[in-house]
Amino acid sequence: MCPNMVMVTEIVTNIYLYGLALAVSLLAAELFKRMEQSEVIGQVLMGILLGPYLLGIIHPNEIFSFISEIGALTLLLIAGLETDIQIILKSRVSATILGVCGVLFTILLAFPIVYSISGDPILSLYIGVTLGATSISLTVRIFSEFGKLKTEEAQTIIISAVFDDLIVVFLSIFVIDLALTGSFGLHRMVHVTFLILVFFAVTLIIGILFAKLIGSRLHKFKSRGAIIIFVFSFGLLFGYFASLMGFSPIIGAYFAGLMLAEVDLKDEIIEGISPIAFVTVPIFLVNIGLRVNVSIIAEAAFLGGLLSIAAIMGKVLSGFPVGKIQKTDRRTLVLLGAARIPRAEVVLVFASIGLELGILNDAWYSSLVVVMITTTFLTPIILKYLLKER
Amino acid sequence: MCPNMVMVTEIVTNIYLYGLALAVSLLAAELFKRMEQSEVIGQVLMGILLGPYLLGIIHPNEIFSFISEIGALTLLLIAGLETDIQIILKSRVSATILGVCGVLFTILLAFPIVYSISGDPILSLYIGVTLGATSISLTVRIFSEFGKLKTEEAQTIIISAVFDDLIVVFLSIFVIDLALTGSFGLHRMVHVTFLILVFFAVTLIIGILFAKLIGSRLHKFKSRGAIIIFVFSFGLLFGYFASLMGFSPIIGAYFAGLMLAEVDLKDEIIEGISPIAFVTVPIFLVNIGLRVNVSIIAEAAFLGGLLSIAAIMGKVLSGFPVGKIQKTDRRTLVLLGAARIPRAEVVLVFASIGLELGILNDAWYSSLVVVMITTTFLTPIILKYLLKER
Repeated sequence: MCPNMVMVTEIVTNIYLYGLALAVSLLAAELFKRMEQSEVIGQVLMGILLGPYLLGIIHPNEIFSFISEIGALTLLLIAGLETDIQIILKSRVSATILGVCGVLFTILLAFPIVYSISGDPILSLYIGVTLGATSISLTVRIFSEFGKLKTEEAQTIIISAVFDDLIVVFLSIFVIDLALTGSFGLHRMVHVTFLILVFFAVTLIIGILFAKLIGSRLHKFKSRGAIIIFVFSFGLLFGYFASLMGFSPIIGAYFAGLMLAEVDLKDEIIEGISPIAFVTVPIFLVNIGLRVNVSIIAEAAFLGGLLSIAAIMGKVLSGFPVGKIQKTDRRTLVLLGAARIPRAEVVLVFASIGLELGILNDAWYSSLVVVMITTTFLTPIILKYLLKER
Repeated sequence: MCPNMVMVTEIVTNIYLYGLALAVSLLAAELFKRMEQSEVIGQVLMGILLGPYLLGIIHPNEIFSFISEIGALTLLLIAGLETDIQIILKSRVSATILGVCGVLFTILLAFPIVYSISGDPILSLYIGVTLGATSISLTVRIFSEFGKLKTEEAQTIIISAVFDDLIVVFLSIFVIDLALTGSFGLHRMVHVTFLILVFFAVTLIIGILFAKLIGSRLHKFKSRGAIIIFVFSFGLLFGYFASLMGFSPIIGAYFAGLMLAEVDLKDEIIEGISPIAFVTVPIFLVNIGLRVNVSIIAEAAFLGGLLSIAAIMGKVLSGFPVGKIQKTDRRTLVLLGAARIPRAEVVLVFASIGLELGILNDAWYSSLVVVMITTTFLTPIILKYLLKER
């Protein structure tokens, strides 16, 4: 009856669901840790179990999506903070090769699959491009769990995942233009190029500003928790800025962390931000499980299964060309590609856009959700195997 | 068009608003801190400035209400953790006197005001009882800012605020019964008494369980951030349990903290939970400001102004009877009452219930919102004065 009452009740229900999801994901994490399995698998499985398609205790809602996004942002913010800029500069050639090959190979593998079934070249191109995107949060979580987030491979992988998304964002604009107008839009191309340049220019300027001016003055804040609030809100706002430029907010959060990676008090900042990740990242993982629709898997299994093969192979193969310029073992080359298998937020965003614009029908849309599920599922297993053997 | 797209856009907008609110409230906190004013006033003022009735940049929404509630819960969880159980046992006589007098005096002062204007005894009783409730979060925030949260007065105040709410919750059930049926419902009285007994029995049992069994085993968790996740989710779930028993969730969070106050690793837990408070409590404060409707203040200023006097005097006077049993200075007696002036969530919850049940009309409902605004506003100023002089 009264909107305030409904709101109060909804808030209390959401508090219950939030507490419950945290508690059970903690249980799952402890169980899987003791079985020497990845905590991530346990937490995603718990999401599937509690989700609408099995027990029906927790349903995805706006609050869960929000906490989940905060979790992903915090994860990438910390990943950025933990990044060694010197390693990035060292690995930029490998990262570029990985990014270009990751997207290119995925398109080359996915296009014939979609085209042979649908006969629609624009649909085939759109799905191929969409599948080029990498959701790095899950990989960051796994590397972090294994204490390998500061390794050179991890940095190369994160940077190349950023490249993956940049290329996909760039290409998708043209494919969408093609789908809507039937021709390449030059003004759009200029527009997008402009946005990318603006994003990096602003990142560079703020980055230098932090390094020279603000970074060494952070201790001058006087109010309680000021440094943590400053860094966290900067991560959120830069995430928003990235989304304005057409990128995923988590890319912005990563660059925000990167900009702060050279400031004083860096270790205290990471330690202070971590508890926020502790209580939001499990929701990100449970939320992935919640959206696993068993009936959609059955219906779209065929299409999604085929696309998953393309999505996985496209990334895994992208590691090998790096071997031509960098002397490294076969297992590392596989790791460089396999770590970028996960398709989650970015692919789902493009899937939604494609559905809204009428480029994708329900079946292809669902098949992209299946790819999200299979890749998210297989990644921890594959990475755990690759990381453990090293 | 597509629900998923809307959701993604809404999430990004909420991330922006969250980041913005944190950043500006940090600015306000820093400014007010440097002016030797309470950070709280600055943060509430920033909420009014950015809110729908002035600049219109931030509007209250479900996400803000949720973060705000998490902020209040975390605040009370930490307050509970920081509580010294021995002081509680020592101050329970004073706390009972304070609680009974606080509610009684408020009813005695508010009843004639409402009755002389409305001529409705049930309405007058309902408003009187509703105004007896205390929202302790703001006080906790101010005491914490002054580093006085562990003092005996602070503990007595928090415990008596819990008594305030217990008495109000208890009485409100009977007043609501009276309003709906025209007679006192004995079975409801038994029911409510039963719920209160259940709440304290469960609290006692879990409390003993923690002290004896779990408290010393917390370090055995193996997954990342497990202790923080455990304590935080326990606070949320016990908050929910309290709401099931008819109390405010923040009361549950406070008792959850209390139960954990004697465990090992207590200091590490407080330190680990604090960053969650840093990024949620400012939203709680900004959210108070957001709901300050200047036009409703104008319309309901007369009623709300009168009720505010009753609400403030009722609590302030409640400190004096304690002087009869406890030798202390006049200023401490005023502090014991004045610290319980704030009326926020609990009063708003009862205002909503009253409106929904038709006990309150829009004018009286708005007048309770005015009381919330005036008391919330005056409390930091009064407390700052009282705490500074000591």
